[in-house]
Amino acid sequence: MPSRIIGDYLIDRLRKLGVRHVFGVPGDYVLGFYAMLQKSPLRIVNTCDEQAAGFAADAYARVQGLGAVCVTYCVGGLKLANATAQAYAEKSPVVVISGAPGMRERDKNPLLHHKVREFNTQKCVFEQLTAASTVLDDPQTALQEIDRVLHAAVRYKRPVYIELPRDMATVPGIAHHVPADIHETSDPVTLRESVAEAAAMLNRAKQPVILADVEIHRFGLQKELLRLIQKSNIPAAATIMGKSVIGENYPFYLGVYAGALGRDEVRRYVEQSDCLLMLGAFMTDINLGVFTARLNPACCISATSERLSIRHHNFDGVRFKDFLRGLLKAPLRRRAPAAIPRPPPMPSFHASSGRKKITVRRLFQRLNSFLRANTTVISDVGDALFGATDLTIHQHTEFLGTAYYASMGFAVPAALGAQLARPARRPLVLVGDGAFQMTGMELTSIARHRLNPIVIVLNNAGYGTERHIQDGPYNDVAPWHYHLLPEVIGSGRGFLVETEEQLENALRLAEAETETFTVLDVHLDPLDRSPALDRLARNLAKRL
Amino acid sequence: MPSRIIGDYLIDRLRKLGVRHVFGVPGDYVLGFYAMLQKSPLRIVNTCDEQAAGFAADAYARVQGLGAVCVTYCVGGLKLANATAQAYAEKSPVVVISGAPGMRERDKNPLLHHKVREFNTQKCVFEQLTAASTVLDDPQTALQEIDRVLHAAVRYKRPVYIELPRDMATVPGIAHHVPADIHETSDPVTLRESVAEAAAMLNRAKQPVILADVEIHRFGLQKELLRLIQKSNIPAAATIMGKSVIGENYPFYLGVYAGALGRDEVRRYVEQSDCLLMLGAFMTDINLGVFTARLNPACCISATSERLSIRHHNFDGVRFKDFLRGLLKAPLRRRAPAAIPRPPPMPSFHASSGRKKITVRRLFQRLNSFLRANTTVISDVGDALFGATDLTIHQHTEFLGTAYYASMGFAVPAALGAQLARPARRPLVLVGDGAFQMTGMELTSIARHRLNPIVIVLNNAGYGTERHIQDGPYNDVAPWHYHLLPEVIGSGRGFLVETEEQLENALRLAEAETETFTVLDVHLDPLDRSPALDRLARNLAKRL
Repeated sequence: MPSRIIGDYLIDRLRKLGVRHVFGVPGDYVLGFYAMLQKSPLRIVNTCDEQAAGFAADAYARVQGLGAVCVTYCVGGLKLANATAQAYAEKSPVVVISGAPGMRERDKNPLLHHKVREFNTQKCVFEQLTAASTVLDDPQTALQEIDRVLHAAVRYKRPVYIELPRDMATVPGIAHHVPADIHETSDPVTLRESVAEAAAMLNRAKQPVILADVEIHRFGLQKELLRLIQKSNIPAAATIMGKSVIGENYPFYLGVYAGALGRDEVRRYVEQSDCLLMLGAFMTDINLGVFTARLNPACCISATSERLSIRHHNFDGVRFKDFLRGLLKAPLRRRAPAAIPRPPPMPSFHASSGRKKITVRRLFQRLNSFLRANTTVISDVGDALFGATDLTIHQHTEFLGTAYYASMGFAVPAALGAQLARPARRPLVLVGDGAFQMTGMELTSIARHRLNPIVIVLNNAGYGTERHIQDGPYNDVAPWHYHLLPEVIGSGRGFLVETEEQLENALRLAEAETETFTVLDVHLDPLDRSPALDRLARNLAKRL
Repeated sequence: MPSRIIGDYLIDRLRKLGVRHVFGVPGDYVLGFYAMLQKSPLRIVNTCDEQAAGFAADAYARVQGLGAVCVTYCVGGLKLANATAQAYAEKSPVVVISGAPGMRERDKNPLLHHKVREFNTQKCVFEQLTAASTVLDDPQTALQEIDRVLHAAVRYKRPVYIELPRDMATVPGIAHHVPADIHETSDPVTLRESVAEAAAMLNRAKQPVILADVEIHRFGLQKELLRLIQKSNIPAAATIMGKSVIGENYPFYLGVYAGALGRDEVRRYVEQSDCLLMLGAFMTDINLGVFTARLNPACCISATSERLSIRHHNFDGVRFKDFLRGLLKAPLRRRAPAAIPRPPPMPSFHASSGRKKITVRRLFQRLNSFLRANTTVISDVGDALFGATDLTIHQHTEFLGTAYYASMGFAVPAALGAQLARPARRPLVLVGDGAFQMTGMELTSIARHRLNPIVIVLNNAGYGTERHIQDGPYNDVAPWHYHLLPEVIGSGRGFLVETEEQLENALRLAEAETETFTVLDVHLDPLDRSPALDRLARNLAKRL
């Protein structure tokens, strides 16, 4: 039976939903709740700045199913606006908890520190950025409100906002409250009709393809997806956002489909399909290769947590999970394995000795053979992401990237969140120098928790992707000596990498160094780019 | 005649209003406008992260009268939510310019990267945080909208928001548009009545006092204030937010009034006044010494840009400037100089030699004699601010602090903004270790512009002020070796300071080093605190 005390009830419910860590920075309006957290089984994880706590909670939520961040009023909460927006756009269920002035302090509307305009200003901001929000200002409704808002996070895999006035944390809610576990069900008749139509369409098709995206990951349906492929022998591609929902060595896996950004043979095979089963897919500009994708809606079945459509009609009241499980039970014919384009093996890598400068292409080739079964690849924005689309993610490897909202500065704090969620998985962080300068100092927080990510700084002295769109001095990033950061932070190991030989040595030492983080400052030419970014640029040029 | 091209018109108007620098980080939706900025007389100032661009523009606006920050859509703009909220709360006119997807791209509501929920989500967020906002989505109204929004920034000294869809920057607005310079005037009869009543009340008073606050600074009325004091011989105190609007060596200056946070004799003199003329004052909890202030409304005249009240009645339609100028013309009697409590000189400082550890009290004593006529003191939150209230700010010295909204991480980026606005003034930055870890790496941006602030890191290994409220491991800040940062950044000079002798040497070398920034890592005891914080804590304890 959970506690009736509002603060403790919130903690109990978070635990029940799988949360074990809460990220944040304390402040006076939230200190009381911090003391409650401190006494609870949840672990507080400090970051240097609140922004990073938001990114860490986002990564934690992607891996663990739910994440939480706890900060003080406005000066803390408003620093989370961007990270929360990202969690909204990319479907990551983060619970934003903010302290606030006590209800008794608000009488006569005084000018209390951290207040912007009205006491509800921060709430109004988060209404724009979350799936549900509440201010726990009334003990009569507080426990119910906690249930409602947490349910929305789990149901929609979107962030939610809970504001806790400081005099409410230790107040009891109503007696005999029973936590509501809401289970939504599909309308059985509509479900039957939609599954039957989809199965018939798949059975008729000559070249059906599954396109797997982000919601397979968020709803933990990787096994169901695999069973569907095994049952039907229909091959599958992934979007960039969905990369790694299927182990990329799997024989029915085509590779990443992303219009002109992906490989040409995958693009042709997917676009020529006469029945494309899109599972949990969001057709963003990046997933569509900046709208170079050419998909015919008359050949598409698209199921997400928000919508189910077949060709040009929609079905209401069918849940994503139920539809996928329905297909698993449906009479799908098992076809002969098709001849599909398979991801080419990356060429095996032999580092040149001597002064041969490292290039983006060669860096990714080397990293591909550096991936282990326990690696989590975390990519920041730009060529760190584009280059990573061609990496072969192993069976149990995970890939985290912000391939739609695309906020810079995600990757280093994400390593903190992802590794706390799964300590045995070692993050390989790919981050440009511009993004690193935003949040890279969170290596501090990583060191505090003795985590051991390997951080590759793609140091090309600027906002590299922007240089290919329109260049100017505003794209220059000042040169830090990233490999010296361990001396400032007081732990970790740094390596300066300019040649293939130095890369080889640094990776070997980094792999052996399991007690602390390592950071590789990899010097690249400002205009160098990955094969994926190169493909995109060339294809876009053709269209002009 | 300003250009009719929307982007150029915006640039022209900003210049006309005194803006010479625009802070920000580029991104694809704003690259076109960056190219226009690059060709214009405005100078683009890159920061490592957008948050710091917001703080820098805030400090710039406080010093220069208007500041501007320019970023990309959502991933840039939403990182500014907190800094913009601070500018709103503390009355700093910052123009937030955000790029956005083009109007032609928005057809059929596609999932474009950086989009949160709807295309207007970011606009809705900034409506909560600004005095006026607009999306320049229509060439027919764009120029007028720019006028309207910029006028609000200047009139209310609050931030405003301008969203520029990327396909609108180079489009012409309507022909023959004449920039609107709006001049609001006071109602002459109400003005006459209010000034007459205030003058009569001041003339009758036995112990009148002026309390000068932030709007004297924001509206540039320091000279008028001085003339009012000279004309009437009425003594003046300042709030914490208003600190430095009067040179603190001036003979009619009492010191900082802030309830129990200020000196006791100032508090008694102000609270015993039978006529308190409050000029541009915002009665926040911090200005009121956490509500320890005891001011009798029946003795108060309060004029701000938003409201004029005398005792318990209000006057509508009287502008702040007009009221102050009205008082300068009114028949105020010139009284004999009163015997007032004057700020005590800080004891002259002689550093002990040898291993005597530095304390907070001794640090501020030493800094007091380190202030020069060209110093700008910039304080971050916590004891960096409280301790600084006792510094004697010279005639031409300026004091910048965030004494109401109190967001951590302001001071280092503020040094960037303040010194670009006034290159001859050298910032002395006071910042705790917790706040420094949020934005201190912006020393990078400071180095790029060859500025030379002296940065004092009050390194007490944690969120020191919070330790005095409620302590726990969440108040610990990881120990950086701050003095080694110049090696990472590739410029600047660092000093480790543990003793008075080391402080003495470091300050001497820092003062002589005018070509680059210096950072002093001053090690303090975790529970040590300034005399001002000590006074506040003791007075609050008395009330319990």
